[in-house]
Amino acid sequence: MNVGRSAELDELFRPASIAVVGASNRPGRVGTTLFRNLLAAGYRGIAYPVNPSWKSVSGVRCYPDLASLPEAPELGVVIVPAAAVARTIDELGRAGAQGAVVISAGFREVGDAGAALEAELVARAREHRMSIVGPNCFGVFNTDPEVGLNATFSEALPPAGNIAFVSQSGALGAGILRYAASERIGFSRFVSVGNRAGVDENDLLTALERDPRTRLILLYVESLANGRRFLEAAREVTEHKPVLVIKSGRTSAGERAAKSHTGSLAQSGRDQLYDAVFAQAGVQRVDSLGGLFRLAKIFASGLEMNGPGLAIVTNSGGPGIVAADAAIRQGLQLPGLADGVRAALAARLPSIASVANPLDMTAEADPEEYRDSLLALLGQPGVDGALVVSSPAGNVTGEAVARAILEAKAASAKPIVACLFGVSDLSEEVAFLEQRGVPTYTFPEEAVEGLGSLARYRAWTTRPHEPVRTFPVEHERAEQAIARARAAGRTVLPEYAARDLLRAYGIRFPEAVLARTVEDAVAAAPRLGFPVVLKVASPEISHKTDVGGVALGIGGTGELRASWERMERSVRAAAPEARIDGFEVEAQVPAGKEVLIGIQRDPSFGPIVVFGMGGIYVEALRDVTFRLAPMRPRSAQHMIESVRSYPLLRGVRGEAPSDVPALAEALERVSQLAAERPEIAELDLNPMIVRPAGHGVVAVDARIVLVPPSRSAPSA
Amino acid sequence: MNVGRSAELDELFRPASIAVVGASNRPGRVGTTLFRNLLAAGYRGIAYPVNPSWKSVSGVRCYPDLASLPEAPELGVVIVPAAAVARTIDELGRAGAQGAVVISAGFREVGDAGAALEAELVARAREHRMSIVGPNCFGVFNTDPEVGLNATFSEALPPAGNIAFVSQSGALGAGILRYAASERIGFSRFVSVGNRAGVDENDLLTALERDPRTRLILLYVESLANGRRFLEAAREVTEHKPVLVIKSGRTSAGERAAKSHTGSLAQSGRDQLYDAVFAQAGVQRVDSLGGLFRLAKIFASGLEMNGPGLAIVTNSGGPGIVAADAAIRQGLQLPGLADGVRAALAARLPSIASVANPLDMTAEADPEEYRDSLLALLGQPGVDGALVVSSPAGNVTGEAVARAILEAKAASAKPIVACLFGVSDLSEEVAFLEQRGVPTYTFPEEAVEGLGSLARYRAWTTRPHEPVRTFPVEHERAEQAIARARAAGRTVLPEYAARDLLRAYGIRFPEAVLARTVEDAVAAAPRLGFPVVLKVASPEISHKTDVGGVALGIGGTGELRASWERMERSVRAAAPEARIDGFEVEAQVPAGKEVLIGIQRDPSFGPIVVFGMGGIYVEALRDVTFRLAPMRPRSAQHMIESVRSYPLLRGVRGEAPSDVPALAEALERVSQLAAERPEIAELDLNPMIVRPAGHGVVAVDARIVLVPPSRSAPSA
Repeated sequence: MNVGRSAELDELFRPASIAVVGASNRPGRVGTTLFRNLLAAGYRGIAYPVNPSWKSVSGVRCYPDLASLPEAPELGVVIVPAAAVARTIDELGRAGAQGAVVISAGFREVGDAGAALEAELVARAREHRMSIVGPNCFGVFNTDPEVGLNATFSEALPPAGNIAFVSQSGALGAGILRYAASERIGFSRFVSVGNRAGVDENDLLTALERDPRTRLILLYVESLANGRRFLEAAREVTEHKPVLVIKSGRTSAGERAAKSHTGSLAQSGRDQLYDAVFAQAGVQRVDSLGGLFRLAKIFASGLEMNGPGLAIVTNSGGPGIVAADAAIRQGLQLPGLADGVRAALAARLPSIASVANPLDMTAEADPEEYRDSLLALLGQPGVDGALVVSSPAGNVTGEAVARAILEAKAASAKPIVACLFGVSDLSEEVAFLEQRGVPTYTFPEEAVEGLGSLARYRAWTTRPHEPVRTFPVEHERAEQAIARARAAGRTVLPEYAARDLLRAYGIRFPEAVLARTVEDAVAAAPRLGFPVVLKVASPEISHKTDVGGVALGIGGTGELRASWERMERSVRAAAPEARIDGFEVEAQVPAGKEVLIGIQRDPSFGPIVVFGMGGIYVEALRDVTFRLAPMRPRSAQHMIESVRSYPLLRGVRGEAPSDVPALAEALERVSQLAAERPEIAELDLNPMIVRPAGHGVVAVDARIVLVPPSRSAPSA
Repeated sequence: MNVGRSAELDELFRPASIAVVGASNRPGRVGTTLFRNLLAAGYRGIAYPVNPSWKSVSGVRCYPDLASLPEAPELGVVIVPAAAVARTIDELGRAGAQGAVVISAGFREVGDAGAALEAELVARAREHRMSIVGPNCFGVFNTDPEVGLNATFSEALPPAGNIAFVSQSGALGAGILRYAASERIGFSRFVSVGNRAGVDENDLLTALERDPRTRLILLYVESLANGRRFLEAAREVTEHKPVLVIKSGRTSAGERAAKSHTGSLAQSGRDQLYDAVFAQAGVQRVDSLGGLFRLAKIFASGLEMNGPGLAIVTNSGGPGIVAADAAIRQGLQLPGLADGVRAALAARLPSIASVANPLDMTAEADPEEYRDSLLALLGQPGVDGALVVSSPAGNVTGEAVARAILEAKAASAKPIVACLFGVSDLSEEVAFLEQRGVPTYTFPEEAVEGLGSLARYRAWTTRPHEPVRTFPVEHERAEQAIARARAAGRTVLPEYAARDLLRAYGIRFPEAVLARTVEDAVAAAPRLGFPVVLKVASPEISHKTDVGGVALGIGGTGELRASWERMERSVRAAAPEARIDGFEVEAQVPAGKEVLIGIQRDPSFGPIVVFGMGGIYVEALRDVTFRLAPMRPRSAQHMIESVRSYPLLRGVRGEAPSDVPALAEALERVSQLAAERPEIAELDLNPMIVRPAGHGVVAVDARIVLVPPSRSAPSA
């Protein structure tokens, strides 16, 4: 986390002066390339090479040390051996620098000795309140012509544009820069965060949100510096700017390392935690680097799609079908044509045209037909954007199609995207259209993927902005349940205490009466309503069924007496030493669907709510989903809908649907509990019974494990 | 289906002479472009323009009609109005042509009148035994320098190579040619099949298999001309050449049209039928056109991967992790390093190198280290191929990396693929490597995708070649069950008849005795073993439970008598008219897992076997899978493993695993029945009970619907 002075990180992105400590003239050295890059990018401030070995570097007067500089450098770029870095940071701080980019490697990434050097570096930076990028990084750039900063040792620099890129891997960042430069993809800023000793992706999200030249933010991460802070930072940023992320290490060493820290259910689903945090933050996760840039192109264009309705206009059937398939896969919709529009187009287009959506104008279409068809479809309510798919079999040149698209664009406010099928991204026609605000793709699927992403982002920014609901809680009752367990030296709460705590948070359990005598039980049962359940109540018996301490489906008074006697005998025989407080008589939960609700706690993500259909669905089919607590009503609803077995709750075979609203509220209540009670390490409501609509949810079994008292729990 | 003379289709691909009927000089006409293309491609035969309007076309003497030609043209290319096409085909036939490519449109695709013209065209072609491509197509080419045939009106021609492409859409084919030409992707042959009045993808698969210049076959289809024939043709071809397919129309008009033909379960899963046929034929289905060409590149290189073991050698951590993630997703494995290899590399590489798989040599790696690391990993048993991921942050040039890779390639027989991270496909470095047999990609995921596809193809060609098993069948018993139903005018078989038919095929049902009197029942029950089930036996009662005609779990003789009396009263009351043959006493099926096995019949795919876990898994969660009958043991096993709920059969919560081998055999037996009994339209075994391993499977309920007698069923 950054310890520097400003949320904008101007000391890193807009420094008035830079000292490059370790600048060099020796060919092949990082200090040589970096200083040359700095000059070549047209830096508007003053760059000072610092190196006792040289009088000048790249023709610029070189200083032997930081103390000799004629002014305080705002930013230091550090390219000295690891052992000398902390001292250099100290000198930079004394010289008045506010930030440093530490290129040098040899820190935490190489083991304990390096980690010690990194700790020292951090201590010096804190002392001087300096913002630090790195160590072990590839550098920083800002293509703002007022700044002209390229403090990387990249061989290639992309053109100026509105895409910001933050990479946890230097080499991956270097590859991306090479790609972006050769494909003419415009970047605003780039940061390789390296070991994240100071500035991390969370600081950068906040800074990039405030950069007027950045329209969208791409992230490459192998892990999140802090999952909880990421959620907060990203959720804020995505209100205004799209964030696309590649999260790697799903399967490799990174994940193996992470596994040793976390609980069992979360363990197998660690990658699902990332999915959860991205979903809750409105961050779009992308599967491949190629895909990342295909999506970036459409966001960079500034187009916005107001809804999921897509019109496809094409001169050929096959590519139109390919586009339609892709649209459905992307969750887009293809509204049918209004009668008037259909009639007008049918009169205008060749008789063999397919006047529908996709609209196949056939190979005979001329440029005016392209333009007018596009405008007719864009004019329809329910159409939020259009894709033109043009195949080379047609009668018109690519240039004529491009001009027709631009004419339509001039007359409609809705977004238009083009697929010049088979034309390479680097062709003149593509450049012509893209320079005029029409993102253009080689294949229909790629264009549709971009449009789908645009529509998803719009759905995110226009979602109902609900607050997290806070339900009234009997706090004293909850605290007592925990305090008593602590006093008794327990980390696992007795079930009645777990129930008590959960009841304080509004989770329903079947009504129960603790009976000391069989007459108490017989008196209580009719009020609870037969059938009832009888359970031994003893803090010393945790597995009641093992000692014959549970009887289900007791239908009447006679059966209750018989069960009591049988249970008393059996428990006494099986657990002669156990203190027995009595027997609980409980209303038996009527039929419903079994679900599981749980709480897990993770060092990076904090409190997590787990949901799944109970029994085999969770255990064998791993059909579970996660969200970070606290969560909003929408997240609770999404959790329920996102398990594969959700259709079971909607009702199958003519059953009534289950009470999904009550289930969603229970998830919110458990989420509130998770966020408010850092003492709870784990919680399981398994099973919880979801009754038919209108009849609520009832928990049957509760298990709560507290954080060991010595350990201070991470709070929400 | 082709009605021509040769499986090789040489009359289309290697004609000694061609008559282009409708060749022209008028700019923009198809006949103009096509004839120019023919000359420009360096055709080695004789091209005759035929058109009464011109003396010469493109400088070549033009003939007024086919009768005037100085010799019999082997192939005709037809570019005349639809109404004149059948006559032209007839004239071509009379002139001695063996094949025709019909470019003209205006046939089946425009409605009934066009369909009539198409039928006439087909009739003329049959008469003369001519091979027909089209109508409504984009043409044919063959880059073989001995032929030099380009009978398309494409604006672009890809270089010669070893990829054959068959497209159901002309415009899509045109786009693909444009793309391939600009990306320098080499093609052997190309065919746009249009309306498939004659030659279809099945004929072409067979012809292309025999073309020595074609190494792999790409297909674009919106539907299959005949699903059953495709399975047969493709299964043969994929033994020798990979086939990659894009099947579109998953969601669009194409699918909607298809839906009206087929049964309900198959309806929702029609796209799954394509998945089934592709899986059974060893055809790899690809999701996007971009992806198709990324895979084609690696197959075109001729590399083969003997197994799933991949070594990743890189100069950078991040891209290595990205590659490793992708490898796991692709089903590849990353074998660990042998101790000796590890020690040798650790001694050789920089101390900060990560000596594992992925092997991160760090940015300091020199070309010798690239080469030697590659060879060390390739030398390990269990490693079947290597991927080099080179990021620009390193110390060496792309050219040096390329040379190091080629040195390793010269010393190892295992395949090597390169990712020059961020370098565009059209760069010199990429061309340098690819010309020397190293497929090279821009991003790590793309390279790994290719390697995964290679490994899957190898797994297909080296799978155990089992025959379809034919189980002994009581054919007479099966035929009688069908014959009696036919004689009674039924299409739905009575359950006992359905059981009889299935028993003839070796499907087990619980042992049952038809009791005429209660004393018969009481005598039979102990032999069957309590608990037993009692069911009314009446051909006139199909829903037994509705009339109180089923009693389960009868534990003893007294209960049996009581059940008999109760059932007799209840059935008489509910169905006073029904003829009652008696009551069946049946051994109750012990516990097990419920599954569904079914048969469906499709006009294109023929008999289909359906499998899923029973009850809600099929009904609500649509967790079913399909295969075409007959199927091999491997397919039966794959069906079982491919449902999401398969873990339930492996055993959960400490249960014994289910008898999967017996289930697989039951699927094979049902598949044999489906293939041998075209009279059966639908069959459902639902539920079938899979007992614990070693205890077999037992069907509980059987339903069979016959094909209406008027309709002749397609046979397997």
